Amino acid sequence: MNVSDASFNRERPDVYGDAHPKALLRGIQEDGDYLLNLANQHVVSSDQFCQDTLKQLFRLAAKYESNPTRFSTPLQGKILISAFYEPSTRTRLSFESAWHRLGGDIMSITDRSTTGIAKGECLEDVAEMFNNYGDCVVLRDNHADSVELMMDTLRIPIINAGNGSDEHPTQAMADLYAIFKWRPDLLESDVPEDRKLTMGVVGIPGKMRTVRSLLKSLAVFANCFKEIVIIHDESVKDELFSPGQREKLEASGLTITLSHDLERELPRLDVTYINAIAWEGDSFETYGGRFSLSASSPLKPEGIILHPLARGEELAKDLDNTPHNWYFSQARGAVFLRMALLTCMVQRAERVIDVV
Amino acid sequence: MNVSDASFNRERPDVYGDAHPKALLRGIQEDGDYLLNLANQHVVSSDQFCQDTLKQLFRLAAKYESNPTRFSTPLQGKILISAFYEPSTRTRLSFESAWHRLGGDIMSITDRSTTGIAKGECLEDVAEMFNNYGDCVVLRDNHADSVELMMDTLRIPIINAGNGSDEHPTQAMADLYAIFKWRPDLLESDVPEDRKLTMGVVGIPGKMRTVRSLLKSLAVFANCFKEIVIIHDESVKDELFSPGQREKLEASGLTITLSHDLERELPRLDVTYINAIAWEGDSFETYGGRFSLSASSPLKPEGIILHPLARGEELAKDLDNTPHNWYFSQARGAVFLRMALLTCMVQRAERVIDVV
Amino acid sequence: MNVSDASFNRERPDVYGDAHPKALLRGIQEDGDYLLNLANQHVVSSDQFCQDTLKQLFRLAAKYESNPTRFSTPLQGKILISAFYEPSTRTRLSFESAWHRLGGDIMSITDRSTTGIAKGECLEDVAEMFNNYGDCVVLRDNHADSVELMMDTLRIPIINAGNGSDEHPTQAMADLYAIFKWRPDLLESDVPEDRKLTMGVVGIPGKMRTVRSLLKSLAVFANCFKEIVIIHDESVKDELFSPGQREKLEASGLTITLSHDLERELPRLDVTYINAIAWEGDSFETYGGRFSLSASSPLKPEGIILHPLARGEELAKDLDNTPHNWYFSQARGAVFLRMALLTCMVQRAERVIDVV
Repeated sequence: MNVSDASFNRERPDVYGDAHPKALLRGIQEDGDYLLNLANQHVVSSDQFCQDTLKQLFRLAAKYESNPTRFSTPLQGKILISAFYEPSTRTRLSFESAWHRLGGDIMSITDRSTTGIAKGECLEDVAEMFNNYGDCVVLRDNHADSVELMMDTLRIPIINAGNGSDEHPTQAMADLYAIFKWRPDLLESDVPEDRKLTMGVVGIPGKMRTVRSLLKSLAVFANCFKEIVIIHDESVKDELFSPGQREKLEASGLTITLSHDLERELPRLDVTYINAIAWEGDSFETYGGRFSLSASSPLKPEGIILHPLARGEELAKDLDNTPHNWYFSQARGAVFLRMALLTCMVQRAERVIDVV
Repeated sequence: MNVSDASFNRERPDVYGDAHPKALLRGIQEDGDYLLNLANQHVVSSDQFCQDTLKQLFRLAAKYESNPTRFSTPLQGKILISAFYEPSTRTRLSFESAWHRLGGDIMSITDRSTTGIAKGECLEDVAEMFNNYGDCVVLRDNHADSVELMMDTLRIPIINAGNGSDEHPTQAMADLYAIFKWRPDLLESDVPEDRKLTMGVVGIPGKMRTVRSLLKSLAVFANCFKEIVIIHDESVKDELFSPGQREKLEASGLTITLSHDLERELPRLDVTYINAIAWEGDSFETYGGRFSLSASSPLKPEGIILHPLARGEELAKDLDNTPHNWYFSQARGAVFLRMALLTCMVQRAERVIDVV
Repeated sequence: MNVSDASFNRERPDVYGDAHPKALLRGIQEDGDYLLNLANQHVVSSDQFCQDTLKQLFRLAAKYESNPTRFSTPLQGKILISAFYEPSTRTRLSFESAWHRLGGDIMSITDRSTTGIAKGECLEDVAEMFNNYGDCVVLRDNHADSVELMMDTLRIPIINAGNGSDEHPTQAMADLYAIFKWRPDLLESDVPEDRKLTMGVVGIPGKMRTVRSLLKSLAVFANCFKEIVIIHDESVKDELFSPGQREKLEASGLTITLSHDLERELPRLDVTYINAIAWEGDSFETYGGRFSLSASSPLKPEGIILHPLARGEELAKDLDNTPHNWYFSQARGAVFLRMALLTCMVQRAERVIDVV
């Protein structure tokens, strides 16, 4: 290479909400009991935690994000088993970075073919072994039932980091964390009607694990949302929701509407969540190719965009340097959210909460 | 997932002999010199160590297992090169967990195709490089001569973690460790005839590396065993033993008998060792499919079962919650046995022995 | 295995220049400012650093190599992202060992197919994520433009660890470090004509990244070299140099000559650099198969041999135990050179320099 200048800048402009975690941190009162109670919980689904537990997690995440180098040893002596049986950079490294930042050690599995599973070992037995090898398991697998099979024999906590087309709960928590960093006022006890959010979700709730988990999370915070608009292709009909999925979300208090026209909805959306990948058995499909966002889309001026995954053509790069871009903050925050969750799951919350 | 309860229990009932390491620990007097002498030894074969050395290793393993969090830093600053050129979960993670629990760092190779070997680099040169990169090598490879090739140029210790159909010595040590946790009285200087064990080994000593190494280990402790029954398919004839293998084992004092009938032998077996996988060149074969154990097998009431590898149909899950199940304890103990061995090999024994 | 003796010796005879780093260390005066200035630099090309910067790096490398266990914590709390999208043992482990020896943690990617890139994620976005996950990136990729693409969005430093057929700058630095360990007198301010080196380089500067980077490095130290003889196959004509490559090197003060006859040149070569692999798109080719060195080659009695990569038939093993063998010292030194570079890049130079 011919380099005239290989220097770089460690700073970035605060267009991405870097300062916002402090506002979120100030907005929530610590209540450590919710965090201590996470010590004996697997994390499998996005609706297993109550609002209070999630708020305390967001608070701890904000504490970590506000001062990234303050806590460097809470996981000292703890070993993570990072089992990614399905391709991933972002999620695996996000978890592993979270663990390393807190001083823990990691054993990675990045490929089913390098494991005993290739010799026919069943997941329950693998989990039985994991009990001896580590303190926490993060599992990604393309079979929806993998997590449950492992839970049968695990005596250490497991986190579902994506099980086929079913769920990806920590992603949904990170999505919410980004929203509340942007709008910490929503965490106050009573949210006035006119401050509630209208959120667009481009995707297929019945087929996309990130969307399925996100909607479950939104349902936990139903009091913060005026309307959730599911934006989808006309061709998707029966498979848009899984049986009972929409009914359960609405029973939790969410108002769900449907739309085929992203452009028409955009001007009224406070948050637009977009994502174009869904899992189908062992591989993935790209959905909603006709839905895409760019700097020339008719976005609400103060609206933000979230995107949970590796980006494709649905999200133009000319949005990166606009205030609509909260997807970078969302990805960054996911590391700190995972730090918060992991700390609690391996019984180290008391090392980082203010009042023990 | 729809989870009603994602909580779990960190404890397990002591049906698996969890308390036994303490009995073993009490039963052996420390003699640190045997451990210090391991500092300049590769670990390549199961019969390279004398009874006294193995007893001291079992004692240190029991010390670790009795109090798993007591020693967290003996390997601080040490780097393990974990080179698994053949698929493995259990063995790789067992070694890596052992190393991490003692505070060391790890570099993993999980696939031949990601290495310079794919470009034609010879193993002696790889080993020459390893001298510069780490403090210990754990090698699994499907070629029997890989370990020896690396030993030519290594100035750091190597552990044979399975070399083709040849040996897997640390597995055999872990097998013995499980037996002595169960019966620490066998480690006394004179074992009365009526307390010696009758052990059944389902497998092909000439083809299965775990069986080959196990038998060599049993030969070192020949005074503890009344009879070793090799249980095998009638179809296996000439290949049952490698040339000279049986003769050498018998010369060490083992009494070896053969049988085709597992069911008939079971009622008199104190220990039944079963295993259904053998390596054949670059892949594996399943042997002895007609031999299997379940809760309804005519097991000796106080007899125990050991199993060294990923389980297949030969070992029914209905045995898991019975007192016959010592295979879980065996797998768990393997981590602590490896901790003991690794500590000594990288010159850190003096950090963990009682009297220096 | 039947082992009569599995013991080994941790020492090696000093035929490989193990004591030389101390001479190099004594020969250079510390000037920490050059090291502190590396904190905001990517490392992409071999000619981006001036002589003074490289000398200070060699000095720090020599300090590390002279006393390998003195500094074990300068990178504590720092996370390396080791992204090797192309097969490698030597380079990956060399970097990872360097990082671990200084107390840092590592996340490895050893295969493109296990990453989000397989789902279509672009490198700029991967780099944006890396900003959140770690403190430094080491990248190997078979595309020449990968490093540059990542630099667009990185706010943490990246090291080019081989980008296609373009460059491999840290290898070239390690080559130079080996030369100066051997001949520290060359680092004095005025090198008399009769002490300058004649160096042979077997390879294709226009096709081999190690050769391209090496020549750029030699050009920075043009005052130390009398002549650089490029030894190549007659069949290679137009592709021997990239457009402008030779002219630029000569403008820096290097005297470059060409030869087809290794045997004839050997008696006058102080340093012979040999290497037989070049990258061609996604795979590699072996060049110059007719050039090879052995103990019976007509080497200059005090001449040394360097070799940057996995060795093939071009370098006979009967040279390993001769004083010509500086390729082992070169490989060993590469770890310490990388330690020096990495320390500076992640803003920890002040922890290891003598005068702050």
